[in-house]
Amino acid sequence: MNLHGPDEAVYLPKGFLWSAVKAGIKASGRADVALAVAPLGASAAAMFTRNRVVAAPLEVDRNHLRRSKGRVRAVLVNAGNANCATGAQGIAVAEQSCVALGRALEAAPEFILPSSTGIIGVPLPLEKLTAAVPAAVAALAGDEAALKAFAAAIMTTDTCMKLASTEFAVGKKTVRVAGACKGSGMIHPNMATMLVYIFTDLDAGPEELQPALKTAVEPTFNAISVDGDTSTNDTVLLLASGASGVQLGASGVAKKFAEALRAVCASLAEQVVRDGEGAQHLVRLEIVGAKSMEEARTIARSIANSPLVKTAWAGCDPNWGRILSSVGKSGIAVDPSRVNIFFGPQQVCRNGMAHPFEEKTAHEYLKQREYGIRVELGRGRHSLEFLTCDLTVDYVHINADYST
Amino acid sequence: MNLHGPDEAVYLPKGFLWSAVKAGIKASGRADVALAVAPLGASAAAMFTRNRVVAAPLEVDRNHLRRSKGRVRAVLVNAGNANCATGAQGIAVAEQSCVALGRALEAAPEFILPSSTGIIGVPLPLEKLTAAVPAAVAALAGDEAALKAFAAAIMTTDTCMKLASTEFAVGKKTVRVAGACKGSGMIHPNMATMLVYIFTDLDAGPEELQPALKTAVEPTFNAISVDGDTSTNDTVLLLASGASGVQLGASGVAKKFAEALRAVCASLAEQVVRDGEGAQHLVRLEIVGAKSMEEARTIARSIANSPLVKTAWAGCDPNWGRILSSVGKSGIAVDPSRVNIFFGPQQVCRNGMAHPFEEKTAHEYLKQREYGIRVELGRGRHSLEFLTCDLTVDYVHINADYST
Repeated sequence: MNLHGPDEAVYLPKGFLWSAVKAGIKASGRADVALAVAPLGASAAAMFTRNRVVAAPLEVDRNHLRRSKGRVRAVLVNAGNANCATGAQGIAVAEQSCVALGRALEAAPEFILPSSTGIIGVPLPLEKLTAAVPAAVAALAGDEAALKAFAAAIMTTDTCMKLASTEFAVGKKTVRVAGACKGSGMIHPNMATMLVYIFTDLDAGPEELQPALKTAVEPTFNAISVDGDTSTNDTVLLLASGASGVQLGASGVAKKFAEALRAVCASLAEQVVRDGEGAQHLVRLEIVGAKSMEEARTIARSIANSPLVKTAWAGCDPNWGRILSSVGKSGIAVDPSRVNIFFGPQQVCRNGMAHPFEEKTAHEYLKQREYGIRVELGRGRHSLEFLTCDLTVDYVHINADYST
Repeated sequence: MNLHGPDEAVYLPKGFLWSAVKAGIKASGRADVALAVAPLGASAAAMFTRNRVVAAPLEVDRNHLRRSKGRVRAVLVNAGNANCATGAQGIAVAEQSCVALGRALEAAPEFILPSSTGIIGVPLPLEKLTAAVPAAVAALAGDEAALKAFAAAIMTTDTCMKLASTEFAVGKKTVRVAGACKGSGMIHPNMATMLVYIFTDLDAGPEELQPALKTAVEPTFNAISVDGDTSTNDTVLLLASGASGVQLGASGVAKKFAEALRAVCASLAEQVVRDGEGAQHLVRLEIVGAKSMEEARTIARSIANSPLVKTAWAGCDPNWGRILSSVGKSGIAVDPSRVNIFFGPQQVCRNGMAHPFEEKTAHEYLKQREYGIRVELGRGRHSLEFLTCDLTVDYVHINADYST
């Protein structure tokens, strides 16, 4: 499978148009309203944050998807304001932005999904958003530049645009899957959120898409962490236009689509961690020998979210004791005397004890921009790869600067 | 109740002797072996880390307390090496240090409790420890200088000695409670642990002491966090010599003792957070309106361990949205529309939404060395005070420096 990243040509799914305009919501003055339209409609699958504090657009999204039975005409995203902790007024603003866009597209509001990312607790300026709608609709196009403009407009603290796409053949037809996302893995001075939009021209119903999305998200977006802070606005949205003429239910398609979808999600998830605020190292944690995937994930998160482990990584310090201690504090009944830890090919802990290793070699290994650490638990047969990054002085600077 | 801190005179419990010597285990060359002896024995209560990775001395402690039925003659502490992840040999070393000290004190080894703090995964040099025993025994004294020498010798990354003591009268008799502890709340480059030793001349059996200790520890040592990393060596030990002649079971004593013990624990816990690595602010989180204490603690920890909240505090940033988001991600089914947040007297969030406040005043409030933040949940009648600190650039420097 050919998977293209943000610097390569995009495998463009048919049946979608994109655009981006400046509405004056971002303080930087850059494009901050992004629009995606499926002129003939699309089936949708969606996953949202598990945070109990849920931003207004997510509540509207859930309500609209229920009323539209999973069909979507357009997605309207603004960056610069999360429309979160804004109460009933926040809901009304999100609804009214859908009414305004629906009028321009001749669509009922429940076929529009709003998304927001940015500062929490500040009312979203509805008039700026609605004033931008006519220009956004006028700018709609189905080409690569339009999708890239969409991907750029949803950025907040991101230092780079995040895009991934692929395609697969079914007989003489081609199905394309392209995703755009934003996220430095966390929240910047009041800035929030990971937002993911995946477009495909596969023909599928919402009820078929939802399990496919869940399967793809678990080992990708749910297996990363920058700082362990779950945003109030996290959204992953999959839209299928059907324009390829290939049905998900046709023989052999489901497997190919699952592979393509997972590859796109995995690439986007990795791009998020690579762009983690202040991150100097991308760490591929491999958890081996867990009793269940849930257990493997719990242990991976205990390691990945430990400030002591993350700061040791920032210092390229082969401090395996902190990793072992994080396994122990995970709440899982691990037997330390069965734990092995490897930095790449080099074992550093054997049966819970120090395993002789060359300090200098390990230090050099941890100086790499990207590396793998394997933790063997000796409890069962489940394995997990989990992506994370280090905690640096820059992370503190980025998030400590007094901004309000 | 008069409570004295590390810079004041110590209320010295009778029936104990202390000393400290240099054994060459700390790289700094400072005193690193501390000894406490109860010549006529003492009743003991103990609480240990919940980390599944447990250092060798803790396993020996549990075994000895079982065999001695909770009676203790001496505590032998070394700093500079945690004797953790050292396997069966680590257990043997801890046992043998007890045998050596027991010989010098004419006591069976099961009446000796070993403690260690320092680097993980490196064998504890038994010969250095046993070689230091005769000098430590010879230096034993029951005065304030001896207890302070004990408190200083157990320090690792601590920047100051941690001591608290008080006394209460029962008729014409006096009971004293004095505690020494170490901890910057976490683990330094391979350095570990919070160790707490509380001495009292109350007369009580081990089975009476254990519930008293648990009651005192829950709202104090179990209500603090520097970085959320649980050490492999955490130990809180309470020893009662009986030398005051006052029995715990006598009328009115239990209540007075509980107050004194809690006051000593609270003071020591606060000293640990104040000395948190790189900390610039001591934050008193007040969680109000929880359904249970456990729920209040879960929410306090979700806030206190959020890198985004902690870095906002480092920047004196009145970013209440991050606090609200941390409440939401705690896993507790909080209704955000009932949450109120206050910075001191100033409300900043009302019913889950922004409450108008003076940014500059809030910023000035958060510039203080120490301040309170109150979070009202509106769910029930349980409240909790939880002490924590900010996450600064210095924390990253202290823990990222390549040291092994």
